[in-house]
Amino acid sequence: MPSETTVTPDPPAAEDIVNPDHFSKCLASGDEAAVRRFLDEVPGSELGRLVSHLDSDERHRLISLLGIESSAAMLDRMELPQVASLLGEIWPEQAAHLLDELPSHYRADILTSFSEADAEEILDKMKPEIAEETRKLLAYEFDSAGHLMVTEYLAYPSHTRIQQVIEDMRAHRDRYATFDVQYAYVTNPDNQLTGVLRLRDLLLAEGDEPVERIMIADPKRIQSNATLDHLRAFFDEHRYLGLPVVDEENRLVGVLQRSSVEEAIGQEATDAFLKVSGLVGGEELRTMPLRLRSSRRLAWLTINIGLNIVAASVIAANEHVLKEVIALAVILPIISDMSGCSGNQAVGVSIRELALNLIRPRDFVRVFMKEAGVGLINGTVLGLLAGILAGLWQQNVAFGFVAGIALMLNTLVAVCLGGIIPLILKGLKKDPALASGPALTTVTDMCGFFLALTFASMMLPYL
Amino acid sequence: MPSETTVTPDPPAAEDIVNPDHFSKCLASGDEAAVRRFLDEVPGSELGRLVSHLDSDERHRLISLLGIESSAAMLDRMELPQVASLLGEIWPEQAAHLLDELPSHYRADILTSFSEADAEEILDKMKPEIAEETRKLLAYEFDSAGHLMVTEYLAYPSHTRIQQVIEDMRAHRDRYATFDVQYAYVTNPDNQLTGVLRLRDLLLAEGDEPVERIMIADPKRIQSNATLDHLRAFFDEHRYLGLPVVDEENRLVGVLQRSSVEEAIGQEATDAFLKVSGLVGGEELRTMPLRLRSSRRLAWLTINIGLNIVAASVIAANEHVLKEVIALAVILPIISDMSGCSGNQAVGVSIRELALNLIRPRDFVRVFMKEAGVGLINGTVLGLLAGILAGLWQQNVAFGFVAGIALMLNTLVAVCLGGIIPLILKGLKKDPALASGPALTTVTDMCGFFLALTFASMMLPYL
Repeated sequence: MPSETTVTPDPPAAEDIVNPDHFSKCLASGDEAAVRRFLDEVPGSELGRLVSHLDSDERHRLISLLGIESSAAMLDRMELPQVASLLGEIWPEQAAHLLDELPSHYRADILTSFSEADAEEILDKMKPEIAEETRKLLAYEFDSAGHLMVTEYLAYPSHTRIQQVIEDMRAHRDRYATFDVQYAYVTNPDNQLTGVLRLRDLLLAEGDEPVERIMIADPKRIQSNATLDHLRAFFDEHRYLGLPVVDEENRLVGVLQRSSVEEAIGQEATDAFLKVSGLVGGEELRTMPLRLRSSRRLAWLTINIGLNIVAASVIAANEHVLKEVIALAVILPIISDMSGCSGNQAVGVSIRELALNLIRPRDFVRVFMKEAGVGLINGTVLGLLAGILAGLWQQNVAFGFVAGIALMLNTLVAVCLGGIIPLILKGLKKDPALASGPALTTVTDMCGFFLALTFASMMLPYL
Repeated sequence: MPSETTVTPDPPAAEDIVNPDHFSKCLASGDEAAVRRFLDEVPGSELGRLVSHLDSDERHRLISLLGIESSAAMLDRMELPQVASLLGEIWPEQAAHLLDELPSHYRADILTSFSEADAEEILDKMKPEIAEETRKLLAYEFDSAGHLMVTEYLAYPSHTRIQQVIEDMRAHRDRYATFDVQYAYVTNPDNQLTGVLRLRDLLLAEGDEPVERIMIADPKRIQSNATLDHLRAFFDEHRYLGLPVVDEENRLVGVLQRSSVEEAIGQEATDAFLKVSGLVGGEELRTMPLRLRSSRRLAWLTINIGLNIVAASVIAANEHVLKEVIALAVILPIISDMSGCSGNQAVGVSIRELALNLIRPRDFVRVFMKEAGVGLINGTVLGLLAGILAGLWQQNVAFGFVAGIALMLNTLVAVCLGGIIPLILKGLKKDPALASGPALTTVTDMCGFFLALTFASMMLPYL
């Protein structure tokens, strides 16, 4: 262990051994062997954190020191968003050489996170045959079967004898070792899929028969343009570990693995989470340059400030009421925040149910009714609570009534709208995770301010 | 097709064929054959939506009509949260019989979503040997290797001859067909794991040798108590499709598949998304009873109203300033909402980086500095924007200054706090996705109101 701590009764915690400062020092020394030894000893779970502690110069130095092959091996151990971010920092030429060394499926995923121009620049510098293959994968819709599939698979013509298959597998043992083979595929002379061979069937069969005798004919297959929603449903229904992917002419183009689909679904959930957190336009890591991080976040915030001004204009239009009853200024932010919370709960349920395909945009009447029930109950409870507290605070029944009824009605509005806004956005082919929150907040803020100030102006003599 | 639409020039869209009302009618008729035919024709992607359109009585009728075995087959085609919710609606006895028919891994997952008492009641009514096996899985920590593994696998003693393995596989072909076999495992007489057999190696080997000759000795393995973070790192680093799981004595207890880990990671992201949406205490589906939905959401909202009152008390304490400059009431909700947004972006990045294991609670100084940079830039831009607009609106430079400087400073506070609050919560072993948002909003609201009102009171002569 390259630990420099002295011997103590308790051994140092694993966290002390993997010390980012130690790694920086080691890198600064320029001792290639020491860096390699350090990397060999770092567990995979810590590698990402160590690299993210380096500054941009240090990361450059690390890659130069290791050389392309070892750097690629290191990247292969890290999480994809971090790898993409790191490749974005270095020269396109270096990035191209590193991508050449990474698995096919990984390459397209990483390039997807670049702008088209940046991706092109890198592709131009990659090995021509690898670039060609990567371009093909990139041509597929994001998260379609073609985008998620791997292009490393085994396929044999239907007349091949079982013994020939086994001999081929034996001869190319090393190459196939990285293939995750559970099935081999059988094709006709036009490369159209005709069957699937299970390894276990190969094992149990006679050697001199043609593979078409033991293959599963007319097997399940996936169109290369199938969407992630479709794939989710398909893999839920069928317990396959992998499925062949075909183009419109039924030609075999790749193999889609269950784990790739599960991973894409997980990524979708992460994206929804990041979007409701107000992080738009890709995953941010703190290793990215400050300017990029600020500007990405600002793009979103400046839209939001506009929406806020629209909502606040309702208050501005009713300043005379506020002037009479200054205590209203205390309850306006409470109404705004509480309605936003109630509505966001409904938004969350709708986005989740849309993702699970339990509802469709056309179900909005049903969703509206279901949410109206919750809105009535929760609005009443919260309205009563807020009304009683506000009335006690101001020692004024009318004030309590205004606060309570405004919160009650606005909760009902927020919950109903929160339920259906994602459906409407989905129906308009917009991303519900992205726009539902702000659309909801703006409307319910305006409505809440309007309700509170209108009721107050009606009750003005009693306040 | 059981469609009742008349023939039109355009064929009906797939959505019209799968009509929930049609299904309800079919069910009401009590015609078992018609219901079965309907279910056979429904694509898997639509089944969940159809069932979720039924009311509770109809779902009961459906399960009675189909009988246990067919109902289990139907559940097996649906998404897990919906299945769990459905089993919660019916009699424990019925639920137990249905669970008996579902795969082992599915059973434990479903029961995890029940209260311990409810799960016990169902377990008591299941087949004893299945209940026993399920209890074992339930005893593992949530999302540990033991919890996620499957208990269907092939294992052979090390002296078994290759030919015997192949014969065993041939003899139990049908039973093993559901096993997702890519590897078989080799154990010693104490059931300790000694090796892994790859199917492809079986295929290429001589029949009369013992399996220990071709097995991969001392293979990678996972401890049954390994956490999801550990599993994520492990499967990222190694390209295995499945790994053997062992207990503390190195005895083989199950097999963990890559897709199960990917699925658990996806579920974790979904949970984070639901929590930041204010949905606490499990996934809500609109098929759940109204009372349960309302009360779960209310539990969260009532905490939130308390936090809001605390924040608003800052306004109440400064009513005299507001009374002088009523226009401040317009900018207070803007400051509150904008700071909340800026801070939530930082929260989102920290939760994501924690999940990717790129940062640790002890990194909070580094995170704080990184966020301070973003907070300074974005605070300055937003403050300038808000200040100019506010100044123009009130035709008063001092008012613009108050609005701008308050928003600027509060953005800086919100962004820095947003970055480190998840680290602090994680350090305290609390769930950052759950508590970061409200903790942040309360503090930044108070701070924002305080800043705006304090600056205003200092500038009062010029406003």
